[in-house]
Amino acid sequence: MVNKDMQNLGENRSAIRELFEFGRLRKAELGEDSVFDFSLGNPSVAPPVAVGDSIKRHADERGIHNYTSAPGDYGVRTQIARYLRDTFGAVQTPEYIYMTCGAAAALTIVFRALACEADEFILMAPYFPEYTVFAKAAGARPVVLAMQEDCGINMPALAAAVNEHTKGVVINSPNNPSGAVYSRAALQSLAALLRQKAAQYGHPIYLIADEPYREIAYDVEVPYIPELYADTIVCYSYSKSLSLPGERIGYVAVNPVATDAADVYAAVCGAGRALGYVCAPSLLQRVVGDMQGVTSDVEVYRRNRDLLYNALCEMGFRCIRPDGAFYLFVKAPIEDSEAVSEHAKQYGLLLVPGDSFGAKGWLRIAYCVDTDMIRRSLPQFAKLAADYRLI
Amino acid sequence: MVNKDMQNLGENRSAIRELFEFGRLRKAELGEDSVFDFSLGNPSVAPPVAVGDSIKRHADERGIHNYTSAPGDYGVRTQIARYLRDTFGAVQTPEYIYMTCGAAAALTIVFRALACEADEFILMAPYFPEYTVFAKAAGARPVVLAMQEDCGINMPALAAAVNEHTKGVVINSPNNPSGAVYSRAALQSLAALLRQKAAQYGHPIYLIADEPYREIAYDVEVPYIPELYADTIVCYSYSKSLSLPGERIGYVAVNPVATDAADVYAAVCGAGRALGYVCAPSLLQRVVGDMQGVTSDVEVYRRNRDLLYNALCEMGFRCIRPDGAFYLFVKAPIEDSEAVSEHAKQYGLLLVPGDSFGAKGWLRIAYCVDTDMIRRSLPQFAKLAADYRLI
Repeated sequence: MVNKDMQNLGENRSAIRELFEFGRLRKAELGEDSVFDFSLGNPSVAPPVAVGDSIKRHADERGIHNYTSAPGDYGVRTQIARYLRDTFGAVQTPEYIYMTCGAAAALTIVFRALACEADEFILMAPYFPEYTVFAKAAGARPVVLAMQEDCGINMPALAAAVNEHTKGVVINSPNNPSGAVYSRAALQSLAALLRQKAAQYGHPIYLIADEPYREIAYDVEVPYIPELYADTIVCYSYSKSLSLPGERIGYVAVNPVATDAADVYAAVCGAGRALGYVCAPSLLQRVVGDMQGVTSDVEVYRRNRDLLYNALCEMGFRCIRPDGAFYLFVKAPIEDSEAVSEHAKQYGLLLVPGDSFGAKGWLRIAYCVDTDMIRRSLPQFAKLAADYRLI
Repeated sequence: MVNKDMQNLGENRSAIRELFEFGRLRKAELGEDSVFDFSLGNPSVAPPVAVGDSIKRHADERGIHNYTSAPGDYGVRTQIARYLRDTFGAVQTPEYIYMTCGAAAALTIVFRALACEADEFILMAPYFPEYTVFAKAAGARPVVLAMQEDCGINMPALAAAVNEHTKGVVINSPNNPSGAVYSRAALQSLAALLRQKAAQYGHPIYLIADEPYREIAYDVEVPYIPELYADTIVCYSYSKSLSLPGERIGYVAVNPVATDAADVYAAVCGAGRALGYVCAPSLLQRVVGDMQGVTSDVEVYRRNRDLLYNALCEMGFRCIRPDGAFYLFVKAPIEDSEAVSEHAKQYGLLLVPGDSFGAKGWLRIAYCVDTDMIRRSLPQFAKLAADYRLI
């Protein structure tokens, strides 16, 4: 008698959440030290001290807990637009920023804002599994491009997949789960292709840039995508850069020079309204406004990356070298990555099978964890490698 | 090329928001004192000092800004369930509470969780206008019962409106916009009717109780609805009781003894997921957990009610006497309430026409404002009364 699609979504947690809950139970049973939980993208690094200070400074401010305007506090949007202009040379204005409850809300809202009947959104494997949930909830059809072995953009597949129903393409760089960061050249090729296809079909194809990992990159450029492709809608979150995933705070930035930008922005406002997002949390809006250009100590993730990547490569695992985000994507030693994930549990290793990322045969290791836990986990990974005769 | 329904929702603000924005501009133009903004349900009373203290106490806590589990922190849900048990004798358990970004999110999620194809939700005029937006966004059809002159439950209309497609009935007591509080006897009649209709059609009819004003009532009982009707789903918000509307924090409480309660709860979790609500804001979850049984100084609203209700009645306006919430519902002196709202602007009075509440010919006055502003506004109301020859 309830909506069965919703019931199924509620009963079948994502593979990530399933593993995380399993880990919680195992820790309670066996002790914290015997579980190596690499399941969740929950930042291990504390938020900057300035975040707590900002929260405390604003906590008693008169009116701070009142409704803001639906798109968000204008002062905060001005701070963000200024940061984007100063940092990336973006043409962003506050009038085209819409504050959201994190990137998940931003994506859900953008899909809903854009989707008309029979519309399709293209996802590039490996991709964050909830994209398909969000796109379907908006009444659109997700179309998944096959993964390239190097986790780059699969241009031939993209060229073949775009059709008259293509409303947008989702891009996530630095990438969850692969850690790949698309180069400027790769993005320029992507932009050229989309421009050509948009012209061919006579309507814009929006690039939906999911960017929660923008600030987490190691010695590579993370190009600002609206600069390369005008019809870009950025979905941003402070979850990772400020270690605030539970606070649900981020934004949608519609490029003011995008095709039909005013219509897109209005539809974003309308979708936010229809989905029950009255405004983004008001205190946290002000806090992130204060924190433009500030990040948590993301160097910890680089150390973790180096430690884990080098050790696993030495053990014979085939890994994508992460240039950003805090995930290591590892080729499963046998094709059945779910079996490997299951097998790894006996060593206390919680590794997410790639299947739900559109990458069967791979495993995701979230290394946003204590460096010491990684160190302690290495003998367990060695046992796993030995079981599969990698060395 | 965008979704036109969403664009329209974004371009056409609600009548309330429209008036509020008009007021903001007028204040900037003419000065704060010449505008009497009665448009928005933004609580005038500051949050309890304990709220700020709780925010500051938790701000630097380790892990406080991490993801909670999707339904919310279990400790917080336990605090809420205990409060509901202790206060109302509810059978509520934490396992059936789902923390949300306020009541708007709660309602959107519940509509989405329940709605199957061709389903209908019944709304009772006068009702909060966004209900229709939320129900339609879930793919359901809102069915509106005509308003009774005393703003009570229109039982004959309800009996006639229920059919095989009726999935739920929305109830909002204390009521926005009328301030009516349904009596225990009225709710018992409602429950009896719904039980009979559910038996007749062979499926449950859920009562969706939107309760942001539960603690704002003047000398009348606000019965706890799940106690009277098992198939009740409570949508609660701390926006009004703790004066935190911008923080977006509330919950869905599925009655554990409701028909198919486990399925309903799973569908609520699934709908939250599909709509991009990863978890409710984590810091504020803990804060409201601490604040069970605490409210802002709601006595201010009683003083405002008495002052405004008595004065307007004396001027010859016909008013529903509000027993709760912080709205006064006034019969417009002429049938065209939009014209009266427009006319009132010349005196700086911002009154929301009842049309969008399903109550043409009425006006809503939100008296969650400074008492002094009400006092200063009375001569302006007198001018309005004179224009319409009420005295």
